[in-house]
Amino acid sequence: MCTLYSRLLFDLRKVFLYFEWKLTHLMNKVLVLGAGRSATSLINYLLQKSDELACQVTVADYALQLAEEKVEGFKNGRAVAFNINKEQEAIHLISTHDIIISMLPARFHIEVAQLCLRYSKHLLTASYVSDDMKVLDEAAKEKGLLFLNECGLDPGIDHMSAKKVIDHIREEKGLELRAFESFTGGLLAPDPSRDNPWEYAFTWNPRNVVLAGQGNVKFIQEGRYKFIPYHKLFRRIEMIHIPGHGYFEGYANRDSLKYLDVYELQGIQTLYRGTLRRPGFCKAWDLFVQLGATDDSYEMEGVAKMTHRQFINSFLSYNPNDSVELKLAHYMGLDLEGPEMHRLKWLGLFEEEEVGLIKGTPAQVLEHILKKKWTIDESIKDQIVMWHLFDYVDGTVTKRIRSAMVATGENATDTAMSKTVGLPLAIVTKLLLQDKIKARGVQIPITPEFYNPILEELETLGFQFIEEEVEL
Amino acid sequence: MCTLYSRLLFDLRKVFLYFEWKLTHLMNKVLVLGAGRSATSLINYLLQKSDELACQVTVADYALQLAEEKVEGFKNGRAVAFNINKEQEAIHLISTHDIIISMLPARFHIEVAQLCLRYSKHLLTASYVSDDMKVLDEAAKEKGLLFLNECGLDPGIDHMSAKKVIDHIREEKGLELRAFESFTGGLLAPDPSRDNPWEYAFTWNPRNVVLAGQGNVKFIQEGRYKFIPYHKLFRRIEMIHIPGHGYFEGYANRDSLKYLDVYELQGIQTLYRGTLRRPGFCKAWDLFVQLGATDDSYEMEGVAKMTHRQFINSFLSYNPNDSVELKLAHYMGLDLEGPEMHRLKWLGLFEEEEVGLIKGTPAQVLEHILKKKWTIDESIKDQIVMWHLFDYVDGTVTKRIRSAMVATGENATDTAMSKTVGLPLAIVTKLLLQDKIKARGVQIPITPEFYNPILEELETLGFQFIEEEVEL
Repeated sequence: MCTLYSRLLFDLRKVFLYFEWKLTHLMNKVLVLGAGRSATSLINYLLQKSDELACQVTVADYALQLAEEKVEGFKNGRAVAFNINKEQEAIHLISTHDIIISMLPARFHIEVAQLCLRYSKHLLTASYVSDDMKVLDEAAKEKGLLFLNECGLDPGIDHMSAKKVIDHIREEKGLELRAFESFTGGLLAPDPSRDNPWEYAFTWNPRNVVLAGQGNVKFIQEGRYKFIPYHKLFRRIEMIHIPGHGYFEGYANRDSLKYLDVYELQGIQTLYRGTLRRPGFCKAWDLFVQLGATDDSYEMEGVAKMTHRQFINSFLSYNPNDSVELKLAHYMGLDLEGPEMHRLKWLGLFEEEEVGLIKGTPAQVLEHILKKKWTIDESIKDQIVMWHLFDYVDGTVTKRIRSAMVATGENATDTAMSKTVGLPLAIVTKLLLQDKIKARGVQIPITPEFYNPILEELETLGFQFIEEEVEL
Repeated sequence: MCTLYSRLLFDLRKVFLYFEWKLTHLMNKVLVLGAGRSATSLINYLLQKSDELACQVTVADYALQLAEEKVEGFKNGRAVAFNINKEQEAIHLISTHDIIISMLPARFHIEVAQLCLRYSKHLLTASYVSDDMKVLDEAAKEKGLLFLNECGLDPGIDHMSAKKVIDHIREEKGLELRAFESFTGGLLAPDPSRDNPWEYAFTWNPRNVVLAGQGNVKFIQEGRYKFIPYHKLFRRIEMIHIPGHGYFEGYANRDSLKYLDVYELQGIQTLYRGTLRRPGFCKAWDLFVQLGATDDSYEMEGVAKMTHRQFINSFLSYNPNDSVELKLAHYMGLDLEGPEMHRLKWLGLFEEEEVGLIKGTPAQVLEHILKKKWTIDESIKDQIVMWHLFDYVDGTVTKRIRSAMVATGENATDTAMSKTVGLPLAIVTKLLLQDKIKARGVQIPITPEFYNPILEELETLGFQFIEEEVEL
């Protein structure tokens, strides 16, 4: 009797295990490569919806602990250690999943893409399409795979929100777009109690912030090609007012002209993309540019023993009678006690404090010094600001649509940056699992199939564009 | 009788031909690759001394006519057509000569050097030693070959004249060198009747003039490393007075620090190398730098239909109410009728004249515009100015030696540039033929074996350094 009961229990258990195994194998498998800060919202979204989507989420990172923290408490989440340089590991992981989301540094995407192609897996990233990636378009289409890139914040939400309005003007209204300007900024939320005259800290890759704008700027203004060299970039700014959020400085991004093709804007009179900062930032940052302190092309001599003050002095003329402060103010034509000098003082740049590096380029030394002050602690909230302007001709009238989104982070973990980068990828993963995305090949999210459902859901999550239209 | 006489004559002719053949084969064979303007003085010198040196000189150039002009009227000169990209031609030429002088663009030297090594030939150039060239040092030494580089003007005469004084101070006097500064300029000879506010024209490779100073400047001043970014270079100038020749502006060359090793100057307090221009040049040239007009890193849009005026305007803000002149003057903080604006007007930069290129980088467009005005006709004389400063400590006194050389060209063919670049190479060829040079391997002319005889002979040819010594 006891044996019979035991036997029955054993058999039932086998049946249960079989169904569980069956279920697991029927579940969709999503692999997130990279568990850094910008992956937090993405992973949370997917794990919270994992039952509904019948999916399992594997989070893979070089630092296993980081991956483990991200999946903790979710039954459909699994963390693994992963090294992109070990091909067998990458092959094993990629070949056993259905959708691969790469949050790795952009240079690794192409290796991941090659494996996705070999093992017929979809690939999603938030990075710019590289030339190497473009080449895979045909092959991905042939295998029925989606290789979606530029589906984060910038690039990502900027594409979707702008292209939606552009398509509305051109295809629904049948009118001509005259001008398109677009700006995005990763900033700090305003906080009057904060002692930081820059109203800025690193909420994003510090190295990219230090190097921002290097290379050459190209745009179109009133039908004319315009070019700005790097050393003039932070002086050629535009002041932008966003109702309810105040003033921002906008400086130009590198190559706006590539959007001529991407958005099919040939013949447009004005095309300009830029970055937002709070007022006063650009003129102060320009000091670093003018000094040559953001240069990343050569190693400085004497870094090991260099102090902050010596770093600044190495870009100034020799003059034993004047202080570093005086020489800098004179060189740059600034008031010694003015707001730009104040910002540099606040950063500790005139202190005889050792930099703390063994060697480095000027940009690396500057980044290291800035990190001492521009870090965000738990109490700090970041803010994403995106702003578009569209001019179009309606009969004899030129009309202007202005569209703005402002998103504020909750704390140093649930940042606005993490949400705005990760949620578009999370939503598109859901849509793909639900078989609602038909596009295949190497894509960016600039068609209604992508932007309509993603923007709609972002709005329900609190990321809303406020539009206003005026006649010019 | 007639037959016998005829026979005798024939035999005598054979004997004569044999001796001529024998003589020819005993003669040294010098090969000059490249017959451009800077090779004129070199070839003349060698051909004039060809009997004395028992040498034949082959001049090889892509343009046969150019080579023919250079050897015309000299019995020991021979011209051949030559294409460096045809390896068999290069092999044939190099393998049948004893000393190879490469006046080709610097990027071709390494190919020539490889062949010189294979066929055991000496090589002489006026270009900087490349890293690829350095690698050949051991192999050249093993084969008993001299690969001498940097034996022209700058680099060349600058090395020799400076190192001679440095060795004098350190080795003969046994004293310590505190400071070394050195400047060279390829200019126009003063001519009050000339209508050229720049007092400048292209007497050298125009592309290199347009790109001059790009990259980063490093030097040492009073024991401190100093760095100047390109966009500040033409403002951080030094005013230099050369008695009898007036004032010059000096701006820094790229990397003065490499001379620490080359001249063994470790521990020196000030080390600075620069370029000379006439007063007012640098501030006006800086306009091009500030605009971004010397940038060579990207192709401009719309070059095919671009006018000079549009070229300038493409770097300025859009403003339909102001003229290009007004926008530029305002942007750069200049007087509309001041000397800098005048220099730009003189160059025709505000004219609605087509550039005349199909495509180009800003630097290529600028070079093309400048060439319309900055060419030298037959009447124009160029001028080379070289200036050194040496400070050394003698007991409790610091002493300063200033050394200057000013060389003026005869006309647009016999330029000072051609002489000062070509004659050091010509003289060292003579010394090598006379077996007076023992150094082997990859060398530059910074030892007495080179600088003493070369400087001595240059002095007899009219290229003299005037030295003066003062106490500080």
